[in-house]
Amino acid sequence: MNIVPIVNTNDAVVPPAEPNSDLQGVNVISVKDNDSLAARLAVEMKTDLLIVLSDVEGLFDSPPGSDDAKLIDIFYPGDQQSVTFGTKSRVGMGGMEAKVKAALWALQGGTSVVIANGTHPKVSGHVITDIVEGKKVGTFFSEVKPAGPTVEQQGEMARSGGRMLATLEPEQRAEIIYHLADLLTDQQEEILLANKKDLEEAQGRLVGPLLKRLSLSTSKLNSLAIGLRQIAASSQDSVGRVLRRTRIAKNLELEQVTVPIGVLLVIFESRPDCLPQVAALAIATGNGLLLKGGKEAAHSNRILHLLTQEALSIHGVKEAVQLVNTREEVEDLCRLDKMIDLIIPRGSSQLVRDIQKAAKGIPVMGHSEGICHMYVDSEASVDKVTRLVRDSKCEYPAACNALETLLIHRNLLRTPLFDQIIDMLRVEQVKIHAGPKFASYLTFSPSEVKSLRTEYGDLELCIEVVDSVQEAIDHIHKYGSSHTDVIVTENEKTAEFFLQHVDSACVFWNTSTRFSDGYRFGLGAEVGISTSRIHARGPVGLEGLLTTKWLLRGQDHVVSDFSEHGSLKYLHENLPVPQRNTN
Amino acid sequence: MNIVPIVNTNDAVVPPAEPNSDLQGVNVISVKDNDSLAARLAVEMKTDLLIVLSDVEGLFDSPPGSDDAKLIDIFYPGDQQSVTFGTKSRVGMGGMEAKVKAALWALQGGTSVVIANGTHPKVSGHVITDIVEGKKVGTFFSEVKPAGPTVEQQGEMARSGGRMLATLEPEQRAEIIYHLADLLTDQQEEILLANKKDLEEAQGRLVGPLLKRLSLSTSKLNSLAIGLRQIAASSQDSVGRVLRRTRIAKNLELEQVTVPIGVLLVIFESRPDCLPQVAALAIATGNGLLLKGGKEAAHSNRILHLLTQEALSIHGVKEAVQLVNTREEVEDLCRLDKMIDLIIPRGSSQLVRDIQKAAKGIPVMGHSEGICHMYVDSEASVDKVTRLVRDSKCEYPAACNALETLLIHRNLLRTPLFDQIIDMLRVEQVKIHAGPKFASYLTFSPSEVKSLRTEYGDLELCIEVVDSVQEAIDHIHKYGSSHTDVIVTENEKTAEFFLQHVDSACVFWNTSTRFSDGYRFGLGAEVGISTSRIHARGPVGLEGLLTTKWLLRGQDHVVSDFSEHGSLKYLHENLPVPQRNTN
Repeated sequence: MNIVPIVNTNDAVVPPAEPNSDLQGVNVISVKDNDSLAARLAVEMKTDLLIVLSDVEGLFDSPPGSDDAKLIDIFYPGDQQSVTFGTKSRVGMGGMEAKVKAALWALQGGTSVVIANGTHPKVSGHVITDIVEGKKVGTFFSEVKPAGPTVEQQGEMARSGGRMLATLEPEQRAEIIYHLADLLTDQQEEILLANKKDLEEAQGRLVGPLLKRLSLSTSKLNSLAIGLRQIAASSQDSVGRVLRRTRIAKNLELEQVTVPIGVLLVIFESRPDCLPQVAALAIATGNGLLLKGGKEAAHSNRILHLLTQEALSIHGVKEAVQLVNTREEVEDLCRLDKMIDLIIPRGSSQLVRDIQKAAKGIPVMGHSEGICHMYVDSEASVDKVTRLVRDSKCEYPAACNALETLLIHRNLLRTPLFDQIIDMLRVEQVKIHAGPKFASYLTFSPSEVKSLRTEYGDLELCIEVVDSVQEAIDHIHKYGSSHTDVIVTENEKTAEFFLQHVDSACVFWNTSTRFSDGYRFGLGAEVGISTSRIHARGPVGLEGLLTTKWLLRGQDHVVSDFSEHGSLKYLHENLPVPQRNTN
Repeated sequence: MNIVPIVNTNDAVVPPAEPNSDLQGVNVISVKDNDSLAARLAVEMKTDLLIVLSDVEGLFDSPPGSDDAKLIDIFYPGDQQSVTFGTKSRVGMGGMEAKVKAALWALQGGTSVVIANGTHPKVSGHVITDIVEGKKVGTFFSEVKPAGPTVEQQGEMARSGGRMLATLEPEQRAEIIYHLADLLTDQQEEILLANKKDLEEAQGRLVGPLLKRLSLSTSKLNSLAIGLRQIAASSQDSVGRVLRRTRIAKNLELEQVTVPIGVLLVIFESRPDCLPQVAALAIATGNGLLLKGGKEAAHSNRILHLLTQEALSIHGVKEAVQLVNTREEVEDLCRLDKMIDLIIPRGSSQLVRDIQKAAKGIPVMGHSEGICHMYVDSEASVDKVTRLVRDSKCEYPAACNALETLLIHRNLLRTPLFDQIIDMLRVEQVKIHAGPKFASYLTFSPSEVKSLRTEYGDLELCIEVVDSVQEAIDHIHKYGSSHTDVIVTENEKTAEFFLQHVDSACVFWNTSTRFSDGYRFGLGAEVGISTSRIHARGPVGLEGLLTTKWLLRGQDHVVSDFSEHGSLKYLHENLPVPQRNTN
């Protein structure tokens, strides 16, 4: 009849004079308040879900606000979870205890229950839709207990496992990675079998390049093992490296040393070979790791994770790397700011953008865009330009460090150099888009660009004309993504001006844009490329997974000794630190 | 009559057959659609505000989605702002042009207008309350134009001014700071006069410590000038320092150099002396700066900002430091993620927490909590403990690096050492709160702590008992804030175990907690203390305001030369870098 009935103890409904027969084993709950009324109604109407909104987030294991109180996401009645109830809720008749009794009774009657907070100003009106969409809100009462640990428990295991990992000797961490590399080749058959299952299940759903990314092979596993051994080798110098030493006073010495960031959450799409690689990076830097892979690679990820834990076991730190298998949405994981210190998305730029949006209070390392420029100066060498443009644009156009916009000095228009570039682009079948200024110089111009801020990721290139190196720099600042920008010129002064003034993560002179890469930079392992201006910028090696702590060793030093009338003076002598190993 | 009338062209209202007499200068707008109807009604009913909700954010200066399109926050009809309209909105009859016409007509009739987006899924239903609360939503149509630039224009000036600042020689940046220091003493009278105005206006509204923080004096200005000269001296080695050099191949050399972060937003409360200090830090590191001070210090801030710009003028970079005077709420500033690269709140921990919550997609540097621990081991020296506890707790209890929780090894209970500590705390009038375990050991215990996670910031101290160094570490990880934690022991092995395993920004052995400070660490200028694990951790010097960029200088190097069948091999030789200057 299109009517939503509202039934409330506070006005219309008088509780019937029933015996006070509460809870489990009894068929009737006596109606004493809104909670019991709601439960009674929900069961009698055979509803699927009862939502109880309160002024607290849900059910906590101790009184909310106390030191150890934790929200219980899912409550299993058979589990005998220990719950200590605090004082009554500030509003409403029934405290949390009444709500829980009602919920348990409703659950027995076949109705699922969620207790959640209905008072959040910005979200109110949406808590109900969030619950119906299956998001993690409040406490869900369920009869069925999942087999594995919750994601919170996994987070804690990763934290404590990571802390143990961090206190191992560098050689021990390297041993774990070498062992994992060996397992990848030794256990090849099993891995490929699991991968076959994934591929079979993906048949019909995934096609072409996606299927290719999902599939593993002997050669892929072998090169993966080689990569892991490189990470192991470069890991020796990462955790515990002394960056700075200062003598503050006699017998009072300060050290700044590298330490792991803590717990990383790495979210990756179909490619299962990501898993051991990322695990090795985390192990090398002593970080705890939560891995969230794509569903389509579930079988492959499971076996690769088991092998990773087997390798970790040789030094008793099996739990440091966790694979999240629960149905948590990525969005929910990105909100666990107390558990996770850094999120690293590995995948499409769409994934990175989504994660950057979803992350609440947790930093995200990654780049979502690579709009790279090459500026060909009026004093560019004819021999070099074509070579550099071809390598930057055509070698691997899908890479984030591929060229997207070519800026040409006006004087070069209608010169042989210009014709050479265009001829080369034609031969390589690069589609040209003209910038507005470039178009205005031509009688018949290629199609005009839709936006000068486009990442084509394909054999397409925007060409625009500029009047000077300054105009090129302004263009890059206005339309670029601060990833990688290059000048081609034989004039050293112009080149240094460009290197100085362009405000991008990577600024190059007379080289291809495509050198912007951790391996090519010689950083050992590549964690990723960051266009953030905080923490790590550009290609990021293992250092991007490290932070520092300060160690101060004294005798019985107090600051009041250094006050105006104190007996001591600050020395602040810089002491030598060991130089970085040469590869 | 408690009725909200809803009038809509789509159903009940038929437009009257009026002549099509549009817009300015005409008294009647012909009703053609909801927009004109709304404007007509709003003016006839003499409403204060007309809110027009659309499916776009508001009025843009170019068609939304085009390269240069910017949302116009406030539109002044007298200003002849140039607006290019795009195609019609996807929904509704009237496109943006119709809405703007209607808005201008309503404005003429005395009704203010906001055009905003009503379709944001998470905010819908709140856009109206946001507008009524005066938040920056959509485009506001106003007759009155403010005198100064908008905050967006200030952001752009700070960006370009900062970029110019960054390209000056280090000596020039130092000169600016030295000049500012001189101005602070030379122009003392004027500064103190402005400050007097602030103090007078604050009379009756502010009391005691707040008034004290607001007030400047000759001695405060003098020590401020000394501080600035120290920043100038330590600035020489900041921007452009080479951190890493690598020979990638013959004639292909990579350099990682320090560069400014970009544009900083510093939000500070009553203390006006913050302004020149923060400005000097930004100048030293070549960053653009937006300053947002408290209203109560408006006069002082204005003159101090003028002097800062005077100093900046000597090298033509006056605009690099901007004082935000518009009525923008702090919350609105924290959303300008395209303009601001880093937010630094200077003030109470409440301020820091508020900013951390408000910042959307912009990193915040600061710490909101300092719950520092001292663990007194069973092998602690009797002579040292009392001295270290007194300095840590009593010297300046409001500091974030003051001691909050004393962890005592169980064996020390009822020893002379224990009695000495308690006696000292009594003499110093420190109120003791007992942890649950400590309380259980005593016949008559002090009041039990409410939470082991408390920052007292006063002469109050929590004491708890632990059985071992491991238990102390576990307690610190569970209840601490990863700021500063100390062990007191004569056993070097125990001390090193503690230093290794405690996961805090600062971990000390046999010293006071209060050494955790940029000046005491010898970092030169102190930017702040960070408990974040990303970018900067612990006391932060000028380096916290810097990031890096990678410069690659080649001849005509392309990556295809380094492929499997290429002619070149990567060398990846680490080249020496200049050592950091010794102070």
